[in-house]
Amino acid sequence: MTLKQRLYRIIFESDTYTGRMFDVWLLVFIVLSIAVVMLESMPAVRELYHSKLISLEWFFTFIFTIEYFTRIYCAPNRKKYLFSFLGVVDFLAIIPTYIAFTFPDAQTFIVIRAIRLLRVYRILKLYHFVRAGNLLLLAIRRSLRKIFIFMMFILILVVMLGSIMYVVEDGKNGFYSIPLSIYWAVITLTTVGYGDIVPVTALGKFLATFIMLLGYSIIAIPTGIVSVEMSRTFRDRTESDKECHGCGEPNHTPTANFCRICGARLDHIS
Amino acid sequence: MTLKQRLYRIIFESDTYTGRMFDVWLLVFIVLSIAVVMLESMPAVRELYHSKLISLEWFFTFIFTIEYFTRIYCAPNRKKYLFSFLGVVDFLAIIPTYIAFTFPDAQTFIVIRAIRLLRVYRILKLYHFVRAGNLLLLAIRRSLRKIFIFMMFILILVVMLGSIMYVVEDGKNGFYSIPLSIYWAVITLTTVGYGDIVPVTALGKFLATFIMLLGYSIIAIPTGIVSVEMSRTFRDRTESDKECHGCGEPNHTPTANFCRICGARLDHIS
Amino acid sequence: MTLKQRLYRIIFESDTYTGRMFDVWLLVFIVLSIAVVMLESMPAVRELYHSKLISLEWFFTFIFTIEYFTRIYCAPNRKKYLFSFLGVVDFLAIIPTYIAFTFPDAQTFIVIRAIRLLRVYRILKLYHFVRAGNLLLLAIRRSLRKIFIFMMFILILVVMLGSIMYVVEDGKNGFYSIPLSIYWAVITLTTVGYGDIVPVTALGKFLATFIMLLGYSIIAIPTGIVSVEMSRTFRDRTESDKECHGCGEPNHTPTANFCRICGARLDHIS
Amino acid sequence: MTLKQRLYRIIFESDTYTGRMFDVWLLVFIVLSIAVVMLESMPAVRELYHSKLISLEWFFTFIFTIEYFTRIYCAPNRKKYLFSFLGVVDFLAIIPTYIAFTFPDAQTFIVIRAIRLLRVYRILKLYHFVRAGNLLLLAIRRSLRKIFIFMMFILILVVMLGSIMYVVEDGKNGFYSIPLSIYWAVITLTTVGYGDIVPVTALGKFLATFIMLLGYSIIAIPTGIVSVEMSRTFRDRTESDKECHGCGEPNHTPTANFCRICGARLDHIS
Repeated sequence: MTLKQRLYRIIFESDTYTGRMFDVWLLVFIVLSIAVVMLESMPAVRELYHSKLISLEWFFTFIFTIEYFTRIYCAPNRKKYLFSFLGVVDFLAIIPTYIAFTFPDAQTFIVIRAIRLLRVYRILKLYHFVRAGNLLLLAIRRSLRKIFIFMMFILILVVMLGSIMYVVEDGKNGFYSIPLSIYWAVITLTTVGYGDIVPVTALGKFLATFIMLLGYSIIAIPTGIVSVEMSRTFRDRTESDKECHGCGEPNHTPTANFCRICGARLDHIS
Repeated sequence: MTLKQRLYRIIFESDTYTGRMFDVWLLVFIVLSIAVVMLESMPAVRELYHSKLISLEWFFTFIFTIEYFTRIYCAPNRKKYLFSFLGVVDFLAIIPTYIAFTFPDAQTFIVIRAIRLLRVYRILKLYHFVRAGNLLLLAIRRSLRKIFIFMMFILILVVMLGSIMYVVEDGKNGFYSIPLSIYWAVITLTTVGYGDIVPVTALGKFLATFIMLLGYSIIAIPTGIVSVEMSRTFRDRTESDKECHGCGEPNHTPTANFCRICGARLDHIS
Repeated sequence: MTLKQRLYRIIFESDTYTGRMFDVWLLVFIVLSIAVVMLESMPAVRELYHSKLISLEWFFTFIFTIEYFTRIYCAPNRKKYLFSFLGVVDFLAIIPTYIAFTFPDAQTFIVIRAIRLLRVYRILKLYHFVRAGNLLLLAIRRSLRKIFIFMMFILILVVMLGSIMYVVEDGKNGFYSIPLSIYWAVITLTTVGYGDIVPVTALGKFLATFIMLLGYSIIAIPTGIVSVEMSRTFRDRTESDKECHGCGEPNHTPTANFCRICGARLDHIS
Repeated sequence: MTLKQRLYRIIFESDTYTGRMFDVWLLVFIVLSIAVVMLESMPAVRELYHSKLISLEWFFTFIFTIEYFTRIYCAPNRKKYLFSFLGVVDFLAIIPTYIAFTFPDAQTFIVIRAIRLLRVYRILKLYHFVRAGNLLLLAIRRSLRKIFIFMMFILILVVMLGSIMYVVEDGKNGFYSIPLSIYWAVITLTTVGYGDIVPVTALGKFLATFIMLLGYSIIAIPTGIVSVEMSRTFRDRTESDKECHGCGEPNHTPTANFCRICGARLDHIS
């Protein structure tokens, strides 16, 4: 096994002791570097420990840079890695510090470093968390189209409701424009209810009552969609315990006697 | 094919290239005209670009007017189109501009133009979005009666709770009248929680706590209704696709080739 | 048919034209009398139309009093009617006006008249609304025990969380006592979020974040309970279409071949 | 039966009249002692009845101390009891009063006494509440892993959203640091919506609208998870009660007397 192959196994896989240790330390560094980004954003902390945080920042950037180049070095397909989702995330995790050093005006740009948190996914991906997560993702992907249509309906609804409230409140009391009224309609319909904009006129309050009850009812719709798809996904998965010995098809309902694909008799082992 | 028939195919159908192009442009015009309505409602924008927005407004009204008369011209049944839901929406989409021009005082009336957004439905209706949407609509229609009864119950509940809180808070602290207290009860029960009216007395806070926990529990009811109806609707739809000609068993997964009960081949008719 | 029987049929039943007319007018009077109670509570309206509202109030009380005594007269079992739930509601619907007349100081007491709204149930009970409502009620009654246990758990949780936040915020910033902190915990956990009390210290905000995410997760529990019970109740109902000709048992699963009670073969008619 | 055994039966069990009486009185004392803790935290009450509350506090502590030592005395395995969950709770329920007496500065520490409420579980455990509760707990435990993964996803999401909003609002309008912005993101995503921090810039409001709609959609996910697991748990429980000895079919409704597949009599073992 060459050095490149050994490095690959440590950095990209987690089936060796060294590989797992690497994952643990990477996780620690990611979390700590996020903590530094957060602390730096707090005015009180920044004033006291600015230089120390900058040093830590450079330390983590240095480590992530080394890791990034090692990943490029030992990736079997370099181009594929560089343009993969996680490859781009790895790049975005280190570049802001260098840019902020070169152009001191681009300070706010440095917040992009929060993207480092996405790197945690790489580590999670290697372990058993992902199986249950994949099941969730599958159920979500299955419901996505229905959720999308629902969202389009909500969008049309809030534009209409916002326009009506703009007229009702006569462009006053926070409802200064239609976009602001739409912002209020979303706050109300989703039951967030900040209270920064509230209806003041009697008619406005009456309409708001109606919108709240509407939101209370339609919150049931995405929940219903996801519940049903989740139920379907989990059931499919459970049923896969019974497997056809003829064609290997794992998807059978619990009371099936024959394979629904090849027609062979199913042995009830499970 | 006469001109009328050709126009009908372009405007009302979407099975030709020209028809699809027409839909795309109509969608663009609708969205842009809504954007104009929104921008016009924003005081800062109105001050700067008032005349430009008015011109754009007239441009879109002109286009929609032509489209409206062409629709009337090529509709197979003119009366039916004129009084259909979408026909009325088409009319309401153009008339406010003319009215606001004739009677300059009726400015707020112009917001009705937001109804143009409903015209998007016409385009969506032509495409595959609608199938999943119909399934949703079917499930919602099925649960409507139960939701309606639930809403009547909620209505009686909020009137009672509002009256009690009006007495408890003694007509003070925002609970100035029973309707206002009902408004508060809806805000609390639906978990919106603006915070513009909050109980101040100890007893009022105690009751509010109880109402919040109640709202937290009964939010489950519409969700339960919709989930169950949705589950039933989706299952009916999936299962009704195939029936075994051997034993009549209707319960098959969508990809099954053989009956899971008697092993007979399934004919893929659907 | 005696007068008593005829009156009973009109007032208590709805299978005749006169009976239905009686229901419609009663419904109108109930809704109008509630409207009077509401209008009277609004300071602006009370000032202008006080005497007119009082007259209307006496008019409705007079009508409901006549109705009450007629009900007593024609009820088959007078004692049973007087102490039934709806009998007590009928009594409470008229008595406040008389008391407020006798003791002018007991003005706030008059709000009890809002209980009149409960009389609407009597009318709904006679019609088809009730069947779907009963199904809902059955599902809710079935889940009540689990919901009750859940509520006890929530109660213990909010007392603990409230006590912790009282210590964390050091009895300041609105968290002046443990009961107030519990009030805040309920507001947060149920996602109502008035914003009248909000954590100010960093630790308090951190804990609040945790409590919000907790509330977001456990809101799923009552929904889950109700969904499952509702699904079970509706399914039971649907399945009752297949009925055993041996013992009449209507409760069979869709794929059953034999009656689960008497063992007779089920005829698959439905 | 020795004194120790008799005491064990009274204190730890509830199958005798004395045992049940003991439970009832313990419940009363726990609830009253919690009431004392709460009253003591209310400034108005504390000023007036401070000495009386202290006396009551010592009374309850005295009773719980006796009970604690009696429990230690009659527990079959003392070490196991002392370090069991409920044993530790019993200890923490009495120790704060002694500590606050010894070190008068540790007043806030006394709030730990709210932990006494957890002792209610001991009594509930003995009765039938627990069976339904256990079913709930089982369903929750089954969904815990999926909920945990979901929470990790939410955590990463709020850190990203908080960082973005910190940049968008430019560290102003309450978004003074990334942790504060994350606090806002949690408030928004969970639909709590205090309104203590709200976006002020147009872009911030636009993003907030998007986040609210996102939160509205993903609230469906934990609900879906719990619903599905709850449905599975309840079904498993119901179905596992009986199995046909004729054909082995395990799927029977709880009240079935005959197998629904082969018609054989079901033995009621469960």
